[in-house]
Amino acid sequence: MASEVQADNGVNVAALLEAREALKNAPEAANFRWRATCNWKNGTHSNSTVEGFYGLGGEQKHKTTFTFDADHPQVFASEDNGATPVEMVLVGLASCLTAGVAAVAQNRGIQLRSVTATLEGNMNLYGILGIDKDVRNGFDGIKVAFKIDADASEDDIKALVAQSQKRSAVYDIVTNPTNVTVKVN
Amino acid sequence: MASEVQADNGVNVAALLEAREALKNAPEAANFRWRATCNWKNGTHSNSTVEGFYGLGGEQKHKTTFTFDADHPQVFASEDNGATPVEMVLVGLASCLTAGVAAVAQNRGIQLRSVTATLEGNMNLYGILGIDKDVRNGFDGIKVAFKIDADASEDDIKALVAQSQKRSAVYDIVTNPTNVTVKVN
Repeated sequence: MASEVQADNGVNVAALLEAREALKNAPEAANFRWRATCNWKNGTHSNSTVEGFYGLGGEQKHKTTFTFDADHPQVFASEDNGATPVEMVLVGLASCLTAGVAAVAQNRGIQLRSVTATLEGNMNLYGILGIDKDVRNGFDGIKVAFKIDADASEDDIKALVAQSQKRSAVYDIVTNPTNVTVKVN
Repeated sequence: MASEVQADNGVNVAALLEAREALKNAPEAANFRWRATCNWKNGTHSNSTVEGFYGLGGEQKHKTTFTFDADHPQVFASEDNGATPVEMVLVGLASCLTAGVAAVAQNRGIQLRSVTATLEGNMNLYGILGIDKDVRNGFDGIKVAFKIDADASEDDIKALVAQSQKRSAVYDIVTNPTNVTVKVN
């Protein structure tokens, strides 16, 4: 099992396993609250900020503040000042599954050389334009294609991806219903 | 209805209504495919790119290429080189609902002065850490709080947000199940 000792994908699995043990005895610390604040700029253009979150029993801060411009493209008579909101969901899903692949690979002693995920979400605009109420507003499906170069068999690589899906927060959010409550002040 | 003439939220509603009429007669043009490509960097850090999409019967390109770093925070023994994937989903939801508020306000002749959406998604880490299989990996719920300053009554402002929810692609993706198929090359 020499590969198990040598694999280095930059994931500190020992620290994660330690954290898991610690959290087992401190359920309150496992309650996280993730946040984003969105400010409307003009038209369909907005700027969102991600800065603080709650977890491990207290307020936490990212190293830096992350900001995101979102907009609609010019073919929708918008300015295209940022990615569309649905593309951001694809980025969230892609990056969640990819981080999972790296973490699982590390835990299994598999050295990754490269991982690329290509995502495509189909959408029929008849939904958001209100042309046909039987057409949903969101994606009618998302396809994810992974290309992975690693020190492992094809089957072991497929198993990495399967385990990542099983533990992915965003995969769960997208594939299962999540309750959203909206209030206006 | 003077306000209907004067309101300018930067949304070209006339062009959108025209597009809707045109698409009614060209269903194939309404089929869009949104894309993102994610490249693993190291550990849980990845970089995603949003560039082209398919729609109106052909390949389209954004004005510029949008890139997104995603990572896990330092409290997860990661480098915090970007927002977490779940925070990106919050940004997608926030920006989708906010763009919708602007578009609906324009259509209803309501002048917006400011719109801020603050989102919070609760997550119990017992899910993604595999401590308790009855705890889901994703958010157990998302709260959205809108603060809107506009030339309209409180009820009309609430109605804007309700209509935005009704037509929001990301709201639909998050609140309803979306099929995701994953393959490994």
